[in-house]
Amino acid sequence: MAERIFNVDCKLSYTLLDDTHFLFLVHALDGMDQEVIDESLRITPSLKHEVHTDAALCHRTLRVKAPAGPLTLRYRASVRLRRPPPDTQAFEVAIEALPHDVLSYLMPTRYCESDRLASAAGKLFGDVPAGYARVQAVSDWIREQVEYRTGSTNTTTTACDVFLQRAGVCRDFAHLGVALCRSLNIPARMAVGYARFDSPPPDFHAVFEAFVGRRWELFDPTGMTDPQDLVRIAVGRDAGDVAFATLFGPVRTRLIRPEVEQVRARRARRAAGPAGHS
Amino acid sequence: MAERIFNVDCKLSYTLLDDTHFLFLVHALDGMDQEVIDESLRITPSLKHEVHTDAALCHRTLRVKAPAGPLTLRYRASVRLRRPPPDTQAFEVAIEALPHDVLSYLMPTRYCESDRLASAAGKLFGDVPAGYARVQAVSDWIREQVEYRTGSTNTTTTACDVFLQRAGVCRDFAHLGVALCRSLNIPARMAVGYARFDSPPPDFHAVFEAFVGRRWELFDPTGMTDPQDLVRIAVGRDAGDVAFATLFGPVRTRLIRPEVEQVRARRARRAAGPAGHS
Amino acid sequence: MAERIFNVDCKLSYTLLDDTHFLFLVHALDGMDQEVIDESLRITPSLKHEVHTDAALCHRTLRVKAPAGPLTLRYRASVRLRRPPPDTQAFEVAIEALPHDVLSYLMPTRYCESDRLASAAGKLFGDVPAGYARVQAVSDWIREQVEYRTGSTNTTTTACDVFLQRAGVCRDFAHLGVALCRSLNIPARMAVGYARFDSPPPDFHAVFEAFVGRRWELFDPTGMTDPQDLVRIAVGRDAGDVAFATLFGPVRTRLIRPEVEQVRARRARRAAGPAGHS
Amino acid sequence: MAERIFNVDCKLSYTLLDDTHFLFLVHALDGMDQEVIDESLRITPSLKHEVHTDAALCHRTLRVKAPAGPLTLRYRASVRLRRPPPDTQAFEVAIEALPHDVLSYLMPTRYCESDRLASAAGKLFGDVPAGYARVQAVSDWIREQVEYRTGSTNTTTTACDVFLQRAGVCRDFAHLGVALCRSLNIPARMAVGYARFDSPPPDFHAVFEAFVGRRWELFDPTGMTDPQDLVRIAVGRDAGDVAFATLFGPVRTRLIRPEVEQVRARRARRAAGPAGHS
Repeated sequence: MAERIFNVDCKLSYTLLDDTHFLFLVHALDGMDQEVIDESLRITPSLKHEVHTDAALCHRTLRVKAPAGPLTLRYRASVRLRRPPPDTQAFEVAIEALPHDVLSYLMPTRYCESDRLASAAGKLFGDVPAGYARVQAVSDWIREQVEYRTGSTNTTTTACDVFLQRAGVCRDFAHLGVALCRSLNIPARMAVGYARFDSPPPDFHAVFEAFVGRRWELFDPTGMTDPQDLVRIAVGRDAGDVAFATLFGPVRTRLIRPEVEQVRARRARRAAGPAGHS
Repeated sequence: MAERIFNVDCKLSYTLLDDTHFLFLVHALDGMDQEVIDESLRITPSLKHEVHTDAALCHRTLRVKAPAGPLTLRYRASVRLRRPPPDTQAFEVAIEALPHDVLSYLMPTRYCESDRLASAAGKLFGDVPAGYARVQAVSDWIREQVEYRTGSTNTTTTACDVFLQRAGVCRDFAHLGVALCRSLNIPARMAVGYARFDSPPPDFHAVFEAFVGRRWELFDPTGMTDPQDLVRIAVGRDAGDVAFATLFGPVRTRLIRPEVEQVRARRARRAAGPAGHS
Repeated sequence: MAERIFNVDCKLSYTLLDDTHFLFLVHALDGMDQEVIDESLRITPSLKHEVHTDAALCHRTLRVKAPAGPLTLRYRASVRLRRPPPDTQAFEVAIEALPHDVLSYLMPTRYCESDRLASAAGKLFGDVPAGYARVQAVSDWIREQVEYRTGSTNTTTTACDVFLQRAGVCRDFAHLGVALCRSLNIPARMAVGYARFDSPPPDFHAVFEAFVGRRWELFDPTGMTDPQDLVRIAVGRDAGDVAFATLFGPVRTRLIRPEVEQVRARRARRAAGPAGHS
Repeated sequence: MAERIFNVDCKLSYTLLDDTHFLFLVHALDGMDQEVIDESLRITPSLKHEVHTDAALCHRTLRVKAPAGPLTLRYRASVRLRRPPPDTQAFEVAIEALPHDVLSYLMPTRYCESDRLASAAGKLFGDVPAGYARVQAVSDWIREQVEYRTGSTNTTTTACDVFLQRAGVCRDFAHLGVALCRSLNIPARMAVGYARFDSPPPDFHAVFEAFVGRRWELFDPTGMTDPQDLVRIAVGRDAGDVAFATLFGPVRTRLIRPEVEQVRARRARRAAGPAGHS
């Protein structure tokens, strides 16, 4: 399993029209298949804030109450990924053999109404061999059938909407992947983080994970990234769990610029710490 | 074009809990590709009623105001069908060549949200040769993908619901056919009438029509009948236009028994002509 | 009944990316409670076109097939309104007393799912005195409960959506008015036309009509206009029947500028009469 | 705070048409504001099973894999409730003061699309004093506006559906309560358990809880029970989290009979154990 290091540089900037309470998910995940080597967070103006780490899933939620006026947040990190290659032969786990904490990822959620898609999923993917191959078929089908179209959806759009309208953005593609997998009794969830696209501008990215072969495998139905390169921020049942910013107040967004790049071998060694002493 | 004669015997029975205004569509259509040879209508108790004939589409709406108590309606008819065989080579008519009175059958309606299904229809049927073959592909796809399941839908169920849940009854199958055709810019409408099923009980039937090759062609996506044998009652934009009974008041339905059978050659001759003269 | 004259000047401009078939509804209605004194239509480039007049409702549909490139349409008219003042004492017409051609305006349509709103409408307006007052209560409730917000809806938005989200534009306000009236067994339809707003820019306007006291009464739930001043283009079951432009092809809209103004007494006399003879 | 004791006797009976995996939530909650004094579970036929206790919320999930054939489950328990009376003066907690583990109860879920109801909730309850009174107003409004009608909803019905159709069962009433509270930025969740109704038959019950005054307060918008008497089984974000039975396989339900009654003072003392020796 090759280790790789990525540098994240995320800048968010808002104008608050009134006191506003924010929940941010911008910290790179320090756990699962990645490790934060080094990180810094700067909030301008300087404000009291709290960071809560989820006991089970390791993501960190930043809570800030900010007064009217400008608010800028800059987060930088070096993150080491230790992600095994996908096991494309992974089998499907029978329901009774699923770990208990995985069961909740079978249930329908706000944006992933798997209960309503059960028949369609059965018709479309019932004949595909179970396991990794079936999830890959789901991901490929989405890529082929759904058009990536900025502005075609909004924050209330669900997997069923996308199944009907065949258009959306990365979050919608991931929701449909999650919903179809759950419809097939495959536990699935959304993973969000920093990813590099061939075509700018930089943005947060969403993909989905399915539980096959006793572990979570990543899939990007947009085809825009290799999900193996995703620097995770969080995983959750759907976008409601893992929005990068949830805000309670009247706000104008000025800048969303989450950048990431892989550190080339030499620089990586330095960034990684003591290794640079040689 | 072989002429055939069908005998219809329709009995409806209700208990009205209060004064109720009814709109019934039970009269066989006397026009288009069929002709009513003979018919009778009996309402019990005897009540004042009106029959309105649609100027353009020829269907007849029976309006009755009935008092609380039992209401029984019996309609009998002999109907000659002069329906040409389907033209399976029919081409698709370009929008600009569509007759003006056909254009409204391109628009989305309550139960046929063709606007929401446009992308999906394009993905599914865009590569099928245009014309009759494409409509047949729509009908075949519905038959294969949607399960006929009594009780799976209700009077608010739409084509999009059926597209998602992949289950419904004849009215839902027809709605999905109509919606998908309109999504493909093929004018389509619902046709309802008397039909014979292999398996009882008798019931009103709904199929759909598409405008190809400059005429309306019938399709039954349920596969339960040969739509060439449908004794038409009415055509309309969707079920809202052609419900066999629309009622304004509290009513308990006791019997719906619309029966139809084809008259065998010898009897047909008698029925068709100046009976008894021979 | 005071007669008034309005001058309409409507300019539409498009860039067609390919051959496109258009259906336009821009002609002022010549019938019902208004009369076209004078009108002109210019299409640039000069193109063959047809105008179809609806036999029952008098609106005129302009059909044009246009080639790739710019397309400009200018329609000018002088229209005399002979509209009686609203009868605010109008009673509600019992179902059995409704004219047959009015019944279809009780049925749910694509954008006005009155069947789904029946209980809510009953709870909200069941206690209001029947007739004009009840429709006024519906219109007032919409004005109070729904926020006019440009961009909050799109062409698939329905009355139920608006009832939930409490935001929309004039078309959405009208749809909700229509749906709530039908839920209450009051026939209702959409009316579109030219109207003058206090705040620019000029745009086509949509209001709704309810059938009370044996005639259609106009209501504008947006409160942006006096609906008595609407220069009608068309009435229909919902926006699907009365879109000012329906287009089959890839088009970029460049200008929508439908202007209208009431002609002051002196000018009106000139415009209306045998001009220049005085 | 008066202690009270309730005896639960729950019998569930199924016919399995094939091997089926079950998740049951039938165990009375042993934690929060209640304590299980004594309990027994019998599964017939005797089958291997597991019980998982949720670390945070204390509910217990029973997992059973059962073969085709009959399956019967009987659960009996004596449960002591130590529930403080509602604090009807409780204030509303500002977002920034909410405990971190309460924040997730502000988010929309599968059956509680609070994001779509935000404007409507603001219009309806924005003027009611914040805190317990506002939640009470939500509960009262639901009771008044929504009709309890068995069979009017199914497992895919959401709070928005209920808001539109104004009919449902206890689960739907609770979902609407949860959704409206969240729309108002009041954390809310569903609570399910054993409750006694004036009119039989016995059934599992669902109510909702809102977080006001720094604790969770119970509300029953159906008005069928005093929620103070609910013997809790579980709390969750919506019905997806707290279904009493989730089953993966083809099953016919034969009996659902969850009974509960309060133990009168004398018997309660005995049931409570060693205390009776004095």
